[in-house]
Amino acid sequence: MKWRGQHDDKHAAANGLSRRWLLRLGLPGMAAAMTSLLGRAGRAAPDASGGFPSISAAGGAFRPGRPAGVPYGAPSPHESGVVRRWLKWMLPSRLSNASFTPLAALEGIITPNGLHFERHHAGVPDIDPATFRLRVHGLVDRPLAFSLEDLKRLPRISRTHFLECAGNGAVSWRRPQVNAVQFTHGLLSCCEWTGVRLQDVLALCGVREGAAWLLAEGADGVAYARSVPREMWDEALLVFAQNGEALRPEQGYPLRLLIPGTEGALNVKWLHRLELGDAPWLTREETARYADLQDDGRARLFTLVQEVNSVITTPSPENGLRRHGQQQISGIAWSGHGRIRAVDVSLDGGVNWRPARLEEPVLPRCLTRFRLPFAWRGEELLLQSRAVDEAGNVQPTYEENLKVKSARQVYHNNSITTWRVMPTGEVRHVRLA
Amino acid sequence: MKWRGQHDDKHAAANGLSRRWLLRLGLPGMAAAMTSLLGRAGRAAPDASGGFPSISAAGGAFRPGRPAGVPYGAPSPHESGVVRRWLKWMLPSRLSNASFTPLAALEGIITPNGLHFERHHAGVPDIDPATFRLRVHGLVDRPLAFSLEDLKRLPRISRTHFLECAGNGAVSWRRPQVNAVQFTHGLLSCCEWTGVRLQDVLALCGVREGAAWLLAEGADGVAYARSVPREMWDEALLVFAQNGEALRPEQGYPLRLLIPGTEGALNVKWLHRLELGDAPWLTREETARYADLQDDGRARLFTLVQEVNSVITTPSPENGLRRHGQQQISGIAWSGHGRIRAVDVSLDGGVNWRPARLEEPVLPRCLTRFRLPFAWRGEELLLQSRAVDEAGNVQPTYEENLKVKSARQVYHNNSITTWRVMPTGEVRHVRLA
Repeated sequence: MKWRGQHDDKHAAANGLSRRWLLRLGLPGMAAAMTSLLGRAGRAAPDASGGFPSISAAGGAFRPGRPAGVPYGAPSPHESGVVRRWLKWMLPSRLSNASFTPLAALEGIITPNGLHFERHHAGVPDIDPATFRLRVHGLVDRPLAFSLEDLKRLPRISRTHFLECAGNGAVSWRRPQVNAVQFTHGLLSCCEWTGVRLQDVLALCGVREGAAWLLAEGADGVAYARSVPREMWDEALLVFAQNGEALRPEQGYPLRLLIPGTEGALNVKWLHRLELGDAPWLTREETARYADLQDDGRARLFTLVQEVNSVITTPSPENGLRRHGQQQISGIAWSGHGRIRAVDVSLDGGVNWRPARLEEPVLPRCLTRFRLPFAWRGEELLLQSRAVDEAGNVQPTYEENLKVKSARQVYHNNSITTWRVMPTGEVRHVRLA
Repeated sequence: MKWRGQHDDKHAAANGLSRRWLLRLGLPGMAAAMTSLLGRAGRAAPDASGGFPSISAAGGAFRPGRPAGVPYGAPSPHESGVVRRWLKWMLPSRLSNASFTPLAALEGIITPNGLHFERHHAGVPDIDPATFRLRVHGLVDRPLAFSLEDLKRLPRISRTHFLECAGNGAVSWRRPQVNAVQFTHGLLSCCEWTGVRLQDVLALCGVREGAAWLLAEGADGVAYARSVPREMWDEALLVFAQNGEALRPEQGYPLRLLIPGTEGALNVKWLHRLELGDAPWLTREETARYADLQDDGRARLFTLVQEVNSVITTPSPENGLRRHGQQQISGIAWSGHGRIRAVDVSLDGGVNWRPARLEEPVLPRCLTRFRLPFAWRGEELLLQSRAVDEAGNVQPTYEENLKVKSARQVYHNNSITTWRVMPTGEVRHVRLA
């Protein structure tokens, strides 16, 4: 091993145009010219349009920065466009609204808590964790009330799961209405959740014979409530943390129900009451809402599991292609039935498919990031992704979905999405005839 | 399946004291009385000290909440104490400082970006991502400058890894100086990182024969720079995202080096220059700093891998025991050498050990959450955790560490930590004689 002192022209190189650098900008496979060649001493500096990075642009010429000491950090001001958004026309009141996760700007599978989608029916209540209680009653031997501290003395578990609103994709059922993956699929997020098992809580109360359903009620302004069938109790968690920290107010602070893989609205937020009974309660939110209207006017109730689904986030309407040459296709896949087994990608509207690489670890009922490199030469593309889960479910086309579902449905649209990439690189949400 | 209408007294029950509820607060194995029995109709309401939760405390009596529509969410005001903190006496200037992750308040393994520890030597620079360039030069065939857009066209990968300052635990080397896990171990965080492989970037530049070291330089006020040996290039990433979103300013926005498992200071932030050479540069930050001073006055250089370590976060000085009975011991373990294989917990200062449960998935060079239930009856405890990694490394006691390291070291303290639990439930950081 040789040793030497600090490299002599390090600071010179960083503070001005070093004459010993030969800089060239380019990647293999690019059709567009990316060569911004800077010659040695004496050659004129390139003009700004040539793509050559000036040294000052590289980061501030070594001046002191902002002092440290932000107790709770925030994104860079340069990322101010990466925010939740909502559709004003979709919901009538800001007390009953939804905001969407900016999927096009995100990487990996974790959704930062500040960008987790939200849906509420009567605003966000302010609940004091010190006096909060979860009541459990009904068909139990011992009705109990639990403080947060009580709950946290039970065995805690942490699991990373997606959470998806049943209405995700609703704007695309009849036709592609919006041209943004934030709105076609952004009622979808994924966190590491921590909580305790519902069954551990119920065991303390003593479940009586005949108990077959459970009513979970929130402490919000409409006392939002849903019935949960017994077969889902085993996997249900009462969670108090997301991505390490306490639940965010919009996600149900201080306690919510989490039944991995089920429609978001079943995962009751601001959870303060569990009642056990022998039949479902048929609340407004599981009959007039969150039920699947059929062609004959009847509705399917308790279609609770979110089916296998996927979408390409890069490129997407928000992430057009800017250059020819090497590109990365990237997207997310998920299924309420378990792990994602495979994701195939088509560039030609479903004629030919190639397998994407799945990012490890592939976890059950969790987002799975898929990626596929390809080279683009300016041709028009019809980009699609098709996910398969470990139960063998294959994500359907819109036409295939209509064979088992009704076009009158609002919820549970897991159809394959098509992005049309124009020769300009612009991306549009389309439906193939 | 039976059906019935909305449960009749649901709203009555939630808005006032329902006469059909028999509420009792209690968990098995508790020595302290937790029974706050409310009788049926006619029994007097219990006083506040009895622990009975009033209905209003349960969450606001069904009034409308705060309207939706927060573009970027924030924690509940009730969690305002869960923040990064710093030790004023430890570092002289807010331009060269460190802030610590509040480990005692966190669950699972993901650190929310706003709470990721930070360490900087000249403040946080503001870098415009549009004009940012990463320059690669030195012993390469083609010196290149990459924009962020260029880098993102290379294959991206996402991995969840811890990041730990070499100085984590420095305050405990000679004696337990601080009584808070936030300060004994909080220069430690864990995120899902997304970026591209260093080797993919270097391959485009063409690494010349003889290139054995790489200088990574940041764009901060001190041009913070470190030498990276070639054997670490394969695993090195150039990352631009953490937990899904763009890197936070304090974590190196828009680009940083990430070499999983190595001391934080090697993972250069605001990375804007890579230079390849045949020997290390011996910068100030790898000689006068981030080197391990030995008893004879010499220093060990390039001790880069963070060794196997663990700490109990619940209970801890910030999380004392409040009640007798059932408790959950919870903590985190990590190793720069790979996966955690096992964590043992001792209640008696290392005489007896019992295995903790490791939360899945157990990932390489990643935090692993361990948990162990136990019952407490008010006896004094000497709580310890001891991690073992898949390479067979066992976390040492302080005495064992001193056989291979010097007490003059500042960095790389991975000794077993002891929390003394007093009969009052208070927890103190102690060192066993």
